Amino acid sequence: MTNQVRIVEVGPRDGLQNEKMNVPTGVKIELINRLTACGHSAIEVTSFVSPKWVPQLSDAAEVFSGFTPKSGVRYPVLVPNLVGYERARAAGATEVAVFTAASEAFSEKNTNATIAQTLERFQPIFERAKADKIAVRGYVSCVLGCPYQGEIAIDDVARIARTLHLMGCYEVSLGDTIGVGTPNKARALMLAVAQVMPASAIAGHFHDTYGQALANVMASLEVGVRVFDSSIAGLGGCPYAKGATGNLATEDLVYLVNGMGMDCGLELGELAQVGAWISHKLGRENQSRAGRAQFAKL
Amino acid sequence: MTNQVRIVEVGPRDGLQNEKMNVPTGVKIELINRLTACGHSAIEVTSFVSPKWVPQLSDAAEVFSGFTPKSGVRYPVLVPNLVGYERARAAGATEVAVFTAASEAFSEKNTNATIAQTLERFQPIFERAKADKIAVRGYVSCVLGCPYQGEIAIDDVARIARTLHLMGCYEVSLGDTIGVGTPNKARALMLAVAQVMPASAIAGHFHDTYGQALANVMASLEVGVRVFDSSIAGLGGCPYAKGATGNLATEDLVYLVNGMGMDCGLELGELAQVGAWISHKLGRENQSRAGRAQFAKL
Repeated sequence: MTNQVRIVEVGPRDGLQNEKMNVPTGVKIELINRLTACGHSAIEVTSFVSPKWVPQLSDAAEVFSGFTPKSGVRYPVLVPNLVGYERARAAGATEVAVFTAASEAFSEKNTNATIAQTLERFQPIFERAKADKIAVRGYVSCVLGCPYQGEIAIDDVARIARTLHLMGCYEVSLGDTIGVGTPNKARALMLAVAQVMPASAIAGHFHDTYGQALANVMASLEVGVRVFDSSIAGLGGCPYAKGATGNLATEDLVYLVNGMGMDCGLELGELAQVGAWISHKLGRENQSRAGRAQFAKL
Repeated sequence: MTNQVRIVEVGPRDGLQNEKMNVPTGVKIELINRLTACGHSAIEVTSFVSPKWVPQLSDAAEVFSGFTPKSGVRYPVLVPNLVGYERARAAGATEVAVFTAASEAFSEKNTNATIAQTLERFQPIFERAKADKIAVRGYVSCVLGCPYQGEIAIDDVARIARTLHLMGCYEVSLGDTIGVGTPNKARALMLAVAQVMPASAIAGHFHDTYGQALANVMASLEVGVRVFDSSIAGLGGCPYAKGATGNLATEDLVYLVNGMGMDCGLELGELAQVGAWISHKLGRENQSRAGRAQFAKL
């Protein structure tokens, strides 16, 4: 197994879309530039969803054209459907991400469509993306539990992840959207999905609602998963998840990865600076423990 | 390996001694009673250190005689020397805990004695405790790093832990006092110590300063450690450790243990009530993510 860990920074999208305040476009752009300067290899920058659904992201095109991309860095954007895809492509995106759920109940509440309907909706996106040479990443949410449905069958997750991979996702990110998972379940899930698609194409996306995110990363690392999503300063949080905390904080993840002698190309020091800066800008408490520790006085 | 995990609640002592405010004796007593009602099998209730050193704990005897013990539950108290031991015994303690460090620099700063001198100081305690049929638990601090000395040699920790065990400690708690450890190091440490004393007599005591505590618990569980110290609502924190966060929160640990299908005899719901109550009493933010999640609104 490789010692290289790839971190996908989702703060600017998954993080900011769940913040209550309206974040100025300039702050979003500066955040992406600062994260780029930290050495990230992948930053999800925004979402081309309908402004009617998520007004916080109505400046998606402006954000996308505003930041300064660095050669070799991936800047995926979320797209819910073909309309979103076309907006993203027009803005100059070279990578998009599509999302569905492992829970029918969540899918219906969140996207007003069955899981099968969301997958159908993606078909023309995959076709166009192939022709346009645009990479597609996939998300599956609620993989370790659903706020409406409770338990989720591992086989359902594996089947949906495999379908996304077969349809054309180069990578499928498995999201514990409400942060209820614990390591044995995370490990069993990752092993099951790795049976039906390459382990190298699986990403773990853990939320820290119950403080379990890093333990679940550990369990995933042990079975060969090497890509993880995280959010600077722990920005974000699912609006449907109980609890104040959201995404796994990038700083905490980087501290773990580096401490284990693995390589993710990132250093805590610079990230902690960015985490402190954006927390200050948003007037919110820094949710990263490693980030806070970095700035605490002896 | 057994599926039983034993949790030693250290909030009333390790937690409250590091709180800045002066906690009323009545609150301390109520906390111990509430924790007892949750089903804890071991609660460290106070410390018989000199009131000159730690004025917050000058009410140790009052606390000890004030709470309502439950049959079968251990209520250890910390003692720094024979004077403290005698005070503890006079108060009715049936279990005491002694503490030293794996770092010479920390030992000198914290106790004004070399590690060897602290061990010497314990000799009469062990003798008296044996005669008095009082159980002795041991703590080794800074096992994964020291704020003054930096790196700590695993062999030093193993040697000191073994000495404490040979001297008479029925259990030795290995403390990552400043929370800098990561899972590979924690695992290597536990394996090394288990070479020189029974694994069943080792406890893990992790601080969550960098968010790594649960991942370190996971690594320790994997190599057979089954006893962990934690603090309700994450109370406490080492005054010498950078960062706002302190002990691993009992609620987060219990969520992990129960989620992994292991048994610790505790439930999140009741603990979360106590965690919320004591956080409110102390006017501090609840540091437990699981505890906060339990009370967050959908």
